[in-house]
Amino acid sequence: MSSNNLPVTYNDPTELGCLADVCIVPLGTSSPSVSDTVFEIENYLRNNTLNVKTTLHSAGTTLEGEMSAVFQLIKQVHLFCHKNLNLVRLHTEIRTGSRIDKNQTASEKVETVEKKIKEKYGS
Amino acid sequence: MSSNNLPVTYNDPTELGCLADVCIVPLGTSSPSVSDTVFEIENYLRNNTLNVKTTLHSAGTTLEGEMSAVFQLIKQVHLFCHKNLNLVRLHTEIRTGSRIDKNQTASEKVETVEKKIKEKYGS
Amino acid sequence: MSSNNLPVTYNDPTELGCLADVCIVPLGTSSPSVSDTVFEIENYLRNNTLNVKTTLHSAGTTLEGEMSAVFQLIKQVHLFCHKNLNLVRLHTEIRTGSRIDKNQTASEKVETVEKKIKEKYGS
Amino acid sequence: MSSNNLPVTYNDPTELGCLADVCIVPLGTSSPSVSDTVFEIENYLRNNTLNVKTTLHSAGTTLEGEMSAVFQLIKQVHLFCHKNLNLVRLHTEIRTGSRIDKNQTASEKVETVEKKIKEKYGS
Repeated sequence: MSSNNLPVTYNDPTELGCLADVCIVPLGTSSPSVSDTVFEIENYLRNNTLNVKTTLHSAGTTLEGEMSAVFQLIKQVHLFCHKNLNLVRLHTEIRTGSRIDKNQTASEKVETVEKKIKEKYGS
Repeated sequence: MSSNNLPVTYNDPTELGCLADVCIVPLGTSSPSVSDTVFEIENYLRNNTLNVKTTLHSAGTTLEGEMSAVFQLIKQVHLFCHKNLNLVRLHTEIRTGSRIDKNQTASEKVETVEKKIKEKYGS
Repeated sequence: MSSNNLPVTYNDPTELGCLADVCIVPLGTSSPSVSDTVFEIENYLRNNTLNVKTTLHSAGTTLEGEMSAVFQLIKQVHLFCHKNLNLVRLHTEIRTGSRIDKNQTASEKVETVEKKIKEKYGS
Repeated sequence: MSSNNLPVTYNDPTELGCLADVCIVPLGTSSPSVSDTVFEIENYLRNNTLNVKTTLHSAGTTLEGEMSAVFQLIKQVHLFCHKNLNLVRLHTEIRTGSRIDKNQTASEKVETVEKKIKEKYGS
């Protein structure tokens, strides 16, 4: 099949753009408060050199980039937590997906819904 | 065990406060674009009468309230989609949890992490 | 809209049948091994009186029943963990959904896929 | 920190063993029945050449292997669905994690819990 059939992001037929919403929590920490770990993870994610954009929200962090880069970053942050934060166990939940009909950023997704609500109800 | 041991939110030993991050997608729609459905769901959630607070983000909606009310709202919106939007099938992912040591809102969770980042790196 | 339009399970227009795959982990336990907690949770779920069927697998437990009963059971097991297991914080991930075109059990879903594989490749 | 501190699986300090429970659903198919797609995905996953073990259950497929290989396989199956199955949009949920204190297979995790239940209640 010709790669022309696949209008994926980034013009690479072996690559896919993706949004991935990631929630990483440590298990086996003595305290139930995990904000110090979340801070270190968030800090690590924001400073990535893989061209992955990050957006923090209350239930995780949304990653945007090439699927390979996003998954590479998730692996890197796991290694970082094990090695540098001495965390023995991590539990991670990833909500992701890919589509080849169009590219849409995380903020565009929210704006589309907010615009529909505003059109119906006014500001 | 005395219910005094359980300093849960809302002073009800049979209830728990929770944050639930919910992503609901329709299956079997002819179009891969689901923003119209997401709009209807978001609109329904925001206008709930169950005292559940909602915050939209790019990968779902965060719900805050009593766990019973949050789950009731999720069931209601499923019924709404089936009955009023004629959606035959829904696929839903919920990231939730509960803690009894303290109450923390969704926005407080984000602020705590952002504050740590600012303290370390400046604004 | 007439409730006749909604051939939901259990003949109750305010109810929906659902499959919910649930993964509950404790945070803030001193040990990264959580099998004792998983055992207690699994045991609690299996002995439910809400007419919810359970199936354990390596990444969670699949619950089958009315959506209200499934959510009620998840809330109950959270309360049980907080009160009886002295767990301060739980992190829970639920993969669920509902459909109104037909009822299908968890085991039927697996059998359908396995049958297609066998038809294509032989046993 | 020396990589000796990290007794990760496979003796590679840049690698982590992981279990990943994956649920992939197509959006924008005209039918709400997705078992044909699930069959193709399951078939693709089982025949992977990345040394990833697969176990099907009713709410997804559990993948076991090196984290890089698991993520590579997930990307490959997305590309396969877009290119070979002409699916425009996929929605994927991954429940994963890593631990460095011990290796445990998916089946061992289930056996540990089942053994505890049997010890308490008899067969």
